[in-house]
Amino acid sequence: MRTGIATLSVRGRLLDKLPAIAAAGFDGIEVFDNDLVACPAPPREVAARCADLGLAVDLFQPVRDAAGVAPEEFGRTLHRVRAKLAVAAELGAPVVLACSHVGDASVDDPDLLAEQLHALGEAASEHGITLAYEALAWGRHVHRVGQAWEAVQRAGHPAVTLAVDTFHMLARGDDGRALAGVPGDRIGFVQVADGPLLRMDLLEWSRHFRCFPGQGVLDVAGVVAASLEAGYRGPVSLEVFSDVVREADPFLTARDGYRSLVFLEDQLASRLRDPAAAAVTAQPPAPTRTDLAFVELANPDGSPEPAALLESLGFVRSGEHRSKPVSMWRNGDACVVLNDTRGGSRWHALGVVTPEVATVAARAKALLWPAVDRTRGAGEARLPGITSPSGVHVFVSAAAGAEDDWRGDFVPAADVPHAGWSGLDHVGIAVPAERLNEEVGFLRTVFDLQPAPVEEFWEPQGRLRSRALRPAHGDTRLVINVEDVRSRQPREGITQVAFGCEDLLAQVRLLRGRGVRLMAVPDNYYVDLAARFDLPEETVAELREHGVLYDRAGDGELLHVYTDVLATGFYVELLERRGGYDGYGSANTHVRLAAQPASS
Amino acid sequence: MRTGIATLSVRGRLLDKLPAIAAAGFDGIEVFDNDLVACPAPPREVAARCADLGLAVDLFQPVRDAAGVAPEEFGRTLHRVRAKLAVAAELGAPVVLACSHVGDASVDDPDLLAEQLHALGEAASEHGITLAYEALAWGRHVHRVGQAWEAVQRAGHPAVTLAVDTFHMLARGDDGRALAGVPGDRIGFVQVADGPLLRMDLLEWSRHFRCFPGQGVLDVAGVVAASLEAGYRGPVSLEVFSDVVREADPFLTARDGYRSLVFLEDQLASRLRDPAAAAVTAQPPAPTRTDLAFVELANPDGSPEPAALLESLGFVRSGEHRSKPVSMWRNGDACVVLNDTRGGSRWHALGVVTPEVATVAARAKALLWPAVDRTRGAGEARLPGITSPSGVHVFVSAAAGAEDDWRGDFVPAADVPHAGWSGLDHVGIAVPAERLNEEVGFLRTVFDLQPAPVEEFWEPQGRLRSRALRPAHGDTRLVINVEDVRSRQPREGITQVAFGCEDLLAQVRLLRGRGVRLMAVPDNYYVDLAARFDLPEETVAELREHGVLYDRAGDGELLHVYTDVLATGFYVELLERRGGYDGYGSANTHVRLAAQPASS
Repeated sequence: MRTGIATLSVRGRLLDKLPAIAAAGFDGIEVFDNDLVACPAPPREVAARCADLGLAVDLFQPVRDAAGVAPEEFGRTLHRVRAKLAVAAELGAPVVLACSHVGDASVDDPDLLAEQLHALGEAASEHGITLAYEALAWGRHVHRVGQAWEAVQRAGHPAVTLAVDTFHMLARGDDGRALAGVPGDRIGFVQVADGPLLRMDLLEWSRHFRCFPGQGVLDVAGVVAASLEAGYRGPVSLEVFSDVVREADPFLTARDGYRSLVFLEDQLASRLRDPAAAAVTAQPPAPTRTDLAFVELANPDGSPEPAALLESLGFVRSGEHRSKPVSMWRNGDACVVLNDTRGGSRWHALGVVTPEVATVAARAKALLWPAVDRTRGAGEARLPGITSPSGVHVFVSAAAGAEDDWRGDFVPAADVPHAGWSGLDHVGIAVPAERLNEEVGFLRTVFDLQPAPVEEFWEPQGRLRSRALRPAHGDTRLVINVEDVRSRQPREGITQVAFGCEDLLAQVRLLRGRGVRLMAVPDNYYVDLAARFDLPEETVAELREHGVLYDRAGDGELLHVYTDVLATGFYVELLERRGGYDGYGSANTHVRLAAQPASS
Repeated sequence: MRTGIATLSVRGRLLDKLPAIAAAGFDGIEVFDNDLVACPAPPREVAARCADLGLAVDLFQPVRDAAGVAPEEFGRTLHRVRAKLAVAAELGAPVVLACSHVGDASVDDPDLLAEQLHALGEAASEHGITLAYEALAWGRHVHRVGQAWEAVQRAGHPAVTLAVDTFHMLARGDDGRALAGVPGDRIGFVQVADGPLLRMDLLEWSRHFRCFPGQGVLDVAGVVAASLEAGYRGPVSLEVFSDVVREADPFLTARDGYRSLVFLEDQLASRLRDPAAAAVTAQPPAPTRTDLAFVELANPDGSPEPAALLESLGFVRSGEHRSKPVSMWRNGDACVVLNDTRGGSRWHALGVVTPEVATVAARAKALLWPAVDRTRGAGEARLPGITSPSGVHVFVSAAAGAEDDWRGDFVPAADVPHAGWSGLDHVGIAVPAERLNEEVGFLRTVFDLQPAPVEEFWEPQGRLRSRALRPAHGDTRLVINVEDVRSRQPREGITQVAFGCEDLLAQVRLLRGRGVRLMAVPDNYYVDLAARFDLPEETVAELREHGVLYDRAGDGELLHVYTDVLATGFYVELLERRGGYDGYGSANTHVRLAAQPASS
């Protein structure tokens, strides 16, 4: 599949963007008119720079308000388009994007539109250029792809083709089916962008919140698949602009963009009848299931605190790594790894279990995610690590007893009594606001985790936005958090580790008996609880006595407690799910945010 | 007028907010339920703290989804409301806010709604409390104030009253007229908030973009005036939450909020038939006209650069201040003041002329804006200065020849030949994103400047948002800019000084002759210009030769040039307006942003 990106998808001046785009591996670019107008180099020189970098100029864009104007105005329009066609010719762009008219001067007359498109096509063909006509979602009269295709057919000129844009189509509620009956050789260009689910004006949404395929919620692959099935073989080109992209490093943006097309191609491979015919290559598949295995505590200074902390939480040092200063700790079925490697990483890490260790590592590599640099002793588990965009290392292990089971690397040190903890329930990872899309994209594209909608909380010093992710199969639950706080540095990496248990009240008594300080819950909370739920008085009294938070959804109930933020930089949550409760107790988040001293 | 503010309008924990609110001068507060639930102090202690600080608890809010539920559910609702009424009683709140139902469980049955409201009113009256029923703009069945009033009347209980909320009413398109026929003693509470003009989902708009009265575009005063005319005499209370407020210093937020109520009261004074009856006090009026007079260059290090710069731009040192190391410079009718006071302010300042110097100073003081601390020699102009939220000093002078004319403070030093510069055209001020509302509010409330909509530009390293302001009378044009750029520290203060002239091409020749470097305009720009406008070839050639930017709107034309960013921290624009051109050449802004080296 031929890959491209619009220059306005990358920050900077035109001539500075080109090396970033080339370095990422794209085949070609769309030159955005405003970028060129503000560029000191004439079009021929821009074309030469592109050629030197191995980039084709696939499109020049856009000609705005291209057709559908009053006849007496069309002379001006033609003058304008001719001037832009001459520029496109100097750039060596074979296609010029013409957008549907967005102004009040637009005339609602299909015959007039067709006639004018024909004339524009004639002007384009003089340069050997093709026009691709695009329905902008906020076009005045033409705003759906079906209308644009109708206009292209009526224009009846070989140099007038249809532009397919996933964002404009999907934003208007169309999908790949809207391209039924459009021959592939009548599609002049395909532009791709994704978007999150937001309820706002289409233009605002488009300008500020587009994202790369795989980061949003739109079925980008469906539209591209329809284009390829129809026989389209031209570039699939990213046109993504957003507040994030405007401010991010251009080399990072270009790499993210390229990665999103690799992912798109992988999705297409399973949707196309004949992927090879469209030169679409599949990547190694995502795991069939993903379970949480362990959290690894980084202790590069060799501090005694983490071990003491684990002991106070009831963890027993249950194994020693065969070749490294790394120990395994267990409390029932809950596992924590303590990494005492001096001078090692300061980032806590995460271990997951999948049946397809090698495949997942290969998939991550194909998607350009950096592998963790680690040494592996003879006979030890493969345990490949991948670095997430926010810097968290995710290690991939096989299941218990398999060759690549991480537990095999540890020499048992002590028996672990059954203690009522049932394993890692979920892990919270804090990322900077501008990395949210990327982090979600990582978990989604490598592990096929599905993100839930963004939840938002107000905390005393700002705002917290959370997005939970889970796989179709497996017990992995991750929560990505963005802290919008001006008064202090936002935290990064693993900030929350939640364990499940069978009898929370009993565990709370054990923890308090070992001197663990749990987050104090205000008395007012229990007054509110009694108002919100018809709980027996003695139940409320018991929750209050133990300082336990409570939530209910349907028949499910959640009981949970938090520690304060610990010396390790995260806090521990202990929770008991009853009757299939499936959430995270977010009704209580505002209480935690106000009560947890270290969060201020 | 009794003033109040909701605790959720201020950042922090409940007990930390109270001192900030009290310090700003408010009479009372609305206690937000979530703030209380997360607070370690029981309600009676919160009430005692408020009493110590001289704050009344005027409202407890909100009871959500209060009425309009299925009959079999109402027992639960009543249980919940009773519990909250008990809390309100402990807080000493005379009114509890009950919001219209937003959920799918809401039943569309006016009789049922009235019956349930009646029952809730009966429960409230047992505590001597009044319910104020509010139509949330996104209520499921009740979302307009007229519907809420209908429900209150049908409920027919003295303890069930109407809550008036300016934001919810105005967001739905209602204004003060919607309160026609509502007796003042049936209005239980009035909440006020403003909002900018945004096209987005109402709930998102409300959560993230509310602002204080005077900062947005809603006719808040009209709704409050209608309430007061009806006889309402209770608190007028701010309920403003936004991303800005969530992150700002609570003392600043509370002061901004209180100021907005002083401004609201001033607006009300001119709208009410009998302001005294409603205890509404007018402030000294805004000026009848405001003209731009001068820019003052701060030169606290005594650098020779600013003087050399002014000379190169054609300015002549035309006067010396009678008592300070300050000189006046002129180029035709354009004035610049150079302040060489060692160790003085590093901020450039602005001088404006109004007919009402003393009144404007008194108005600024009444609105709590800080005065500039300055010394004044005997016989010198009053020239009061006011500090804007972003730190720019605005000095207020009388017109030429009047007693408080700033020019009277200077001894003429040289004759100024007429040089074709016609004065200050506009001044650009950069402010941090979180100060935009405040800076606009300052210029609007003190000088009655009217803000235009926000314009947005993409620059190579991020985004630029601009908002122009002008008075109804006078030549003042200010442009407030917000730079959203992650790669460098955003600039602050006066960053652009634009002068007008009569013959730009002649002036450009003069400037170049004096060695002034003007911003280089790319050749591609003129190719685009020829495409966009039907300009004669020789006109385009002349513009290109002089490196002049061009814009057209209707019959008006703009010609303009920029210097690079100068040692003074700003750049100079020179422009010629023809045929009534009234804008700022924003079609060319993207070229400036890409071409001006120091902006990167």
